Amino acid sequence: MERYRRASQILLRYVSCETRSLSKRPCGSSIAGSQSRIQEQFIREYNTKLRNVLPHSMPRVCTRTVQVQDEDRLSAANTDWMRKYKGSSQLLLLPKTTEEVSKILFYCNSRRLAVVPQGGNTGLVGGSVPVFDEVLINMASMDKIISLDKVNGILTCEAGCILENLNNYLTSEGFIMPLDLGAKGSCQIGGNVSTNAGGLRFIRYGSLHGNILGLEVVLANGTVLDMLGTLRKDNTGYDLKHLFIGSEGSLGIVTKVSILTPAKLLSTNLAFLACNDYLSCQKLLFEAKRELGEVLSAFEFMDSHAIDLVLGHLEGLRNPLPTSSYKFYVLIETTGSDESYDKAKLEAFLLHSMECALVSDGVIAQDISQASTFWRIREGISEASVKLGAVYKYDLSLPVEKLYDIVEEMSQRLGDVAKVVGYGHLGDGNLHLNILTAEYSDDILAKIEPFVYEWTSMHRGSISAEHGLGLMKADKIHYSKSSETVQLMASIKKLLDPNCILNPYKVLPQSVL
Amino acid sequence: MERYRRASQILLRYVSCETRSLSKRPCGSSIAGSQSRIQEQFIREYNTKLRNVLPHSMPRVCTRTVQVQDEDRLSAANTDWMRKYKGSSQLLLLPKTTEEVSKILFYCNSRRLAVVPQGGNTGLVGGSVPVFDEVLINMASMDKIISLDKVNGILTCEAGCILENLNNYLTSEGFIMPLDLGAKGSCQIGGNVSTNAGGLRFIRYGSLHGNILGLEVVLANGTVLDMLGTLRKDNTGYDLKHLFIGSEGSLGIVTKVSILTPAKLLSTNLAFLACNDYLSCQKLLFEAKRELGEVLSAFEFMDSHAIDLVLGHLEGLRNPLPTSSYKFYVLIETTGSDESYDKAKLEAFLLHSMECALVSDGVIAQDISQASTFWRIREGISEASVKLGAVYKYDLSLPVEKLYDIVEEMSQRLGDVAKVVGYGHLGDGNLHLNILTAEYSDDILAKIEPFVYEWTSMHRGSISAEHGLGLMKADKIHYSKSSETVQLMASIKKLLDPNCILNPYKVLPQSVL
Repeated sequence: MERYRRASQILLRYVSCETRSLSKRPCGSSIAGSQSRIQEQFIREYNTKLRNVLPHSMPRVCTRTVQVQDEDRLSAANTDWMRKYKGSSQLLLLPKTTEEVSKILFYCNSRRLAVVPQGGNTGLVGGSVPVFDEVLINMASMDKIISLDKVNGILTCEAGCILENLNNYLTSEGFIMPLDLGAKGSCQIGGNVSTNAGGLRFIRYGSLHGNILGLEVVLANGTVLDMLGTLRKDNTGYDLKHLFIGSEGSLGIVTKVSILTPAKLLSTNLAFLACNDYLSCQKLLFEAKRELGEVLSAFEFMDSHAIDLVLGHLEGLRNPLPTSSYKFYVLIETTGSDESYDKAKLEAFLLHSMECALVSDGVIAQDISQASTFWRIREGISEASVKLGAVYKYDLSLPVEKLYDIVEEMSQRLGDVAKVVGYGHLGDGNLHLNILTAEYSDDILAKIEPFVYEWTSMHRGSISAEHGLGLMKADKIHYSKSSETVQLMASIKKLLDPNCILNPYKVLPQSVL
Repeated sequence: MERYRRASQILLRYVSCETRSLSKRPCGSSIAGSQSRIQEQFIREYNTKLRNVLPHSMPRVCTRTVQVQDEDRLSAANTDWMRKYKGSSQLLLLPKTTEEVSKILFYCNSRRLAVVPQGGNTGLVGGSVPVFDEVLINMASMDKIISLDKVNGILTCEAGCILENLNNYLTSEGFIMPLDLGAKGSCQIGGNVSTNAGGLRFIRYGSLHGNILGLEVVLANGTVLDMLGTLRKDNTGYDLKHLFIGSEGSLGIVTKVSILTPAKLLSTNLAFLACNDYLSCQKLLFEAKRELGEVLSAFEFMDSHAIDLVLGHLEGLRNPLPTSSYKFYVLIETTGSDESYDKAKLEAFLLHSMECALVSDGVIAQDISQASTFWRIREGISEASVKLGAVYKYDLSLPVEKLYDIVEEMSQRLGDVAKVVGYGHLGDGNLHLNILTAEYSDDILAKIEPFVYEWTSMHRGSISAEHGLGLMKADKIHYSKSSETVQLMASIKKLLDPNCILNPYKVLPQSVL
């Protein structure tokens, strides 16, 4: 009964949608009442304490921090981007400094109050919203750029900075962020770090494990870990920052980030291509890695269903190619330092690929506006997919040669009840599998899961390439990780957060905690 | 007295050179006798047990594994590359399988016998040799290549594979290793991973934290952690492999590695340049990052003392430039996919740099033989530095603009008693500071330390950019890491290796364990 005892320590209130397996826990109204009382006390105590400890120059921090009055904002913070997960938190805090985060966590930990760290709340696995009525700590108010080392391209900023804002700032200084993703207008760098976001530039600049140079993190007990180095190389002891990259806020709250940013290269070229079959897409990737080599900066693919979805549901977009009878589309981007040479290189590559019949048709963007349209098609798929009704989203890493098989098998398996869409970062072996239906249904879910996880596991893939596990897949971790490894993860969780207050029910199965 | 109690559990024998601070421990001959008896028993028990547990098809494993008979080999394994650290292990084991490593560690852990994992023993901080008479586990016999995914360039191999052998194998398949270093002919990939080796290709391909895709690791208690994924993206739970990258064998023994290897690009060009002052070197780096951009693959610098050292002490080398009155030399390598374009690009860059007076003189290698000679000069510095007598080696990360100041300050500080040499990976902000004297002396050491560490700490640098802490700098960790961070490292060490049998006295100060 260890797991139930621990769960009750976190003072569950009541059960939200999409948390069926957790609904069986023994959490009655008496506990809810207790949590309510504690919450009132918390707000009172928190206000009093903050007033005492914060400098007098920040008199509005307390009123700004506690947002329970604003029901709309609270409701939005309780609901995930897909409207699939909804929590019931009554308390949304927006700390403005690391010290405040530390004090909030110290307070919550000493009283065993569960918290959910939240960035832009753009995640797709229910990792950034409460399951019950956990305290929400949103980092949006910590949005300052701290420094930019213009010789080495090292940016240091607070965790709440929005990715697109950082990229815009860097672009004006001759650098770019090493990651880019569809949610860039809302997602925060702290959330990107905590979920080890991948995205569109991964093939060129690699993982955040390679690009993050330093972090400041607040642990569950309020301890501030200053690992905010700005050095490319530092082999002094265990590199603990990696524990917090991708741990989805379950080991600590990232408050500051330093990141290596590549020089902004002057020449970007983008091609929108059609392939008749998946094998051609694979061969094209192999050739692109060799022939485009050092200038290749994106290799994205979409099937015809994905394209139809975007063109049918988003305004002002059309297929850049005259006919639309192709089965697959590929976006290839190159980024280099020589406009005319780079463009000629991409043109020669395409010509050669068409001669070899790898590519059936294609067009190179002639200006920035056209390039934006091409990207809008690729980046709009996620947005378009939720317009049709319900969408089951899977984010798989698979060996490239097997990657599209699951789309075809799933399509056969589901027949007419669903439209199965496949797209993603082919260059990284990352498939986004979207299954669109009129509404969420247990019958359909039973046809999809556990099949999709078993299939992925059988092919030694990952059931979460870049989205993380969150609430959706915490119990599925064993499809991708050995039991010894999960056990060690649990030991580390218990070491860093012995009261399990940080983002409970996410990432790891409750059975190991 | 916690630290002494724990130390005695590891059964110290006697004190070796260079371990002064540890010599004060209460370890008399009675303990030595006890360890000797236990060791005899260990050999006997180990042989018996291995005979029982290993398949009959491997009858020679036992005799091959236990090498106490071969005194020369044992002596070599006890001594570090610089002949600065010497242990007294009587037992050198060469396991051939992960299962054997597991059984050895299970055995040692249950009897609290300390072990030292060893790769090519090319480290520079005393991390790979015993301090006293720890059991040596050398990975040289686990040297098989397991697989190469030729579409994605993912190599999986055993930990004992020698770096150069891996690179030669990959080259024949159209790939290269993402790291390269002077010790490549002896160092093992498991050691590279365990020390988070940096080296010459870091500026292009980044850190091992970005390139290692999976590891198999044996923990102190013999548990095998299978994290040997081969996927570029995998966000399923905490990415624990990073704990073992750079932890110098103190958290587990790496037995297998999978690593992303870049495509071998066909065109490599190398320039050997002279600059009159350090500011020009910095400006040249800034320009190279922008103008050479995506083809830049190395930016190394050496001062005139480094060049003089190599030319004076290694056979068959001469300065590629006609006059030798320059203060600094820079090696710039580009790697790309187009021979004539890449060469023209480097030539244009050099011409422009000479016009701007950043470069005083320079030459581009005309063939592979000339390129090898240029590289031999850079890579020979470490070898040449030990030919003069004693050498104090420091490996610092510093902000580029401050990086050479420490060389000049140290030179003034030491005067005639030492020659101070500065070189390294300028593109990564990594200085190798070598101080050459006739012999090791406490007086000279007192002039160097703690000054060098205090200076580095004051400038927010790292006291170990890529060499690790080992025995030499375990007690110095606080110059680069906060006390909270070191405390968490200690907690993780105690979690993974509660008996502290793995590489004791290294990486972390004894005071926190």
